[in-house]
Amino acid sequence: MKPGIGVALVLGAAMTGLVGGSALAQGQSLSQQLSADIAAGKISIEGDDAAVNELILKRNIPIPYSYIDTLMHVPNAFGPGPACVVCHSSNDPAESYRGLDLSTCEGIRLGSTEEPARPIFVVGQDPKREILGRRLRNNRMPLGVEFNVPTDSPAILAVEAWIRSGAPNDKNFTDNVLPLFTTESAFAPDTPACTDCHMSNQEPPSFHELDMSSYEGIMLGADSIAKGVDNATKVIIPGEPERSGVWQHLAENRMPPGISPFENRDHANTQIMFAWVKQGALCN
Amino acid sequence: MKPGIGVALVLGAAMTGLVGGSALAQGQSLSQQLSADIAAGKISIEGDDAAVNELILKRNIPIPYSYIDTLMHVPNAFGPGPACVVCHSSNDPAESYRGLDLSTCEGIRLGSTEEPARPIFVVGQDPKREILGRRLRNNRMPLGVEFNVPTDSPAILAVEAWIRSGAPNDKNFTDNVLPLFTTESAFAPDTPACTDCHMSNQEPPSFHELDMSSYEGIMLGADSIAKGVDNATKVIIPGEPERSGVWQHLAENRMPPGISPFENRDHANTQIMFAWVKQGALCN
Amino acid sequence: MKPGIGVALVLGAAMTGLVGGSALAQGQSLSQQLSADIAAGKISIEGDDAAVNELILKRNIPIPYSYIDTLMHVPNAFGPGPACVVCHSSNDPAESYRGLDLSTCEGIRLGSTEEPARPIFVVGQDPKREILGRRLRNNRMPLGVEFNVPTDSPAILAVEAWIRSGAPNDKNFTDNVLPLFTTESAFAPDTPACTDCHMSNQEPPSFHELDMSSYEGIMLGADSIAKGVDNATKVIIPGEPERSGVWQHLAENRMPPGISPFENRDHANTQIMFAWVKQGALCN
Repeated sequence: MKPGIGVALVLGAAMTGLVGGSALAQGQSLSQQLSADIAAGKISIEGDDAAVNELILKRNIPIPYSYIDTLMHVPNAFGPGPACVVCHSSNDPAESYRGLDLSTCEGIRLGSTEEPARPIFVVGQDPKREILGRRLRNNRMPLGVEFNVPTDSPAILAVEAWIRSGAPNDKNFTDNVLPLFTTESAFAPDTPACTDCHMSNQEPPSFHELDMSSYEGIMLGADSIAKGVDNATKVIIPGEPERSGVWQHLAENRMPPGISPFENRDHANTQIMFAWVKQGALCN
Repeated sequence: MKPGIGVALVLGAAMTGLVGGSALAQGQSLSQQLSADIAAGKISIEGDDAAVNELILKRNIPIPYSYIDTLMHVPNAFGPGPACVVCHSSNDPAESYRGLDLSTCEGIRLGSTEEPARPIFVVGQDPKREILGRRLRNNRMPLGVEFNVPTDSPAILAVEAWIRSGAPNDKNFTDNVLPLFTTESAFAPDTPACTDCHMSNQEPPSFHELDMSSYEGIMLGADSIAKGVDNATKVIIPGEPERSGVWQHLAENRMPPGISPFENRDHANTQIMFAWVKQGALCN
Repeated sequence: MKPGIGVALVLGAAMTGLVGGSALAQGQSLSQQLSADIAAGKISIEGDDAAVNELILKRNIPIPYSYIDTLMHVPNAFGPGPACVVCHSSNDPAESYRGLDLSTCEGIRLGSTEEPARPIFVVGQDPKREILGRRLRNNRMPLGVEFNVPTDSPAILAVEAWIRSGAPNDKNFTDNVLPLFTTESAFAPDTPACTDCHMSNQEPPSFHELDMSSYEGIMLGADSIAKGVDNATKVIIPGEPERSGVWQHLAENRMPPGISPFENRDHANTQIMFAWVKQGALCN
């Protein structure tokens, strides 16, 4: 008996139930899932990355390490720029920035080995707010700052010290910190004030519903309307500048170095790499 | 004695006959062939892929598997889109579409392992009309159909059933099948009628000299003038929809998913992969 | 005790001196060097390749062979065009141009094996004027000549013979060689005269301060003002056409074949590959 034609032949989906095997005993094959979703009108084709979203990311396909290895080695993998491994291919910090070796699976899982040594993600968890995610997605602020601007300038150190001291609403904040957020070129030449884009908790016009014009706005955090006040994303963690979004955005350059802030932050390969981490960052 | 300069030094061709070795005992080196062809005015420089055509494809250079492996792993290898291995890297159909593993040479040669299991080419033969060639080159029809349109719609199933029943010129064909080819949006929203582009056996204006406006035209096939009526490419194989070009074009999406139909169907890398298959799909 | 924040956390530089290890005992880590250079205002952000220049090339980071291997295998590595390994993946000159195998580290180091066998660089030295550098950087002249134009034409052979005979300022030069440099389309159809771009030792308007309009100008060489007359780059090495820039530019096609002469000759990947050669062309 011939199998049914139509989508079955196209996608290889065994709609007649002839297919067995351990994996399929527990559910549908990918082709079967896709056929069903297409029939149900569940497939979106909006946007440049529609194929990646619909066929890959929504279905938790195991991302092979061999693809991650390719991404580490090719230029322009996450947007225009040099390959990751050119700067990060050894655990020796005299040979490789941060002693970070992205040329092997073990090195990727190990993370930075130069003190302070740190992994770049937590295996099995969404790396969006971990170092991997921040470096690939977050534009350094203020918008337009170049990578030759020091990240330990007096202005940035003032913000850092204020957060580390507990982020109090005191005279130092009012006199020395808040003006940095409301003044042009406070952190780098020819850059807008933070409040040019983050002036209220309404979006539009304020990006991420973030208000940097007052103590209350800064402590409320981002997306307080979209997520609700109680679930807003805190951008200041009192006492911990390195975990605070405000400090991270001031002091961390987006990778690859030199990339334009207008390049897609949700590049298909970035999403695929995140999926690999969430799946366990497996090496085979 | 010094070797002759000129093209000899440039290309390294040993025009003085000094070169030996088993391969050359049977003919000229590649450099010698190229020098001779240049001298004879046989090298064309027309088109974007001239270098690939003249230097590689015309000369049957053995394509190394390491290059095929690269093509499977990099994005945009055959036109804009995700890397092949992201969706096809395992023989488990719950993890990889069609249980197709393109991440290894053995997997490429094995083809789809989900039922109905099928190789994607015949080793040593031109894969142009095999699954590999169709998926890389053939635009799904009608032009502009998106990949979220079901391939088992009533319209496509009606065409399939007609072919399977022997493709007779009967009342069912006249009443139910032929109108699908002559009507706009018969197979997908906002798509032209087949006959908008395939209206006679003259090209121009009819693409591929294919006339889908009548039973006789459809059964005659494509390129009946260019190749002669007896050698025209049949687009209907009575009884076998899966081998019929009409059905294939209605039901098979071009890869990578989401690629524009206006992207070059004869991409240099597509031609190189075909050459590798014709050479035996060797794994070293 | 917490490490200092600021650039230390950003770049991982251990500014408090906590970091040890053999490499760092002899100097700063890369991150520390970069922090210091940023503080000193030594980082330039001019140009498309600023990140590569400042973060990689200036710091002599060991380039891993795995990145060179990638460059050999991917299309468009040094500008638009096919991957190197498609034409150069075997030491058999019947299978691979010039018997040059770029698919292995040993093959890259070995160079062309077809007679006249030649390495493409000297390990540990700048390959800019070696075969590797010339093929990646030098546009074949006159500008616009296509790769299907013979490199052993009577005009090119006349130049070659004149150089080989010692490049004398004789009647043959005046009557038969000099006019080739001053006449349009002397070496290829629809190409400018050499003297259209190289007409004096002043730049602008004369590219490379090279004057091809007289015997004295040609023998003086290029960049005689920028470098001084005694250090000008000789473009004629009497008796040795294959070492003479004039002949090289007439007879050597830029790679990848078909690349436009307007593509960046100092591609970031070209610079990185040169760095790898200078570092010893190591295979691990």
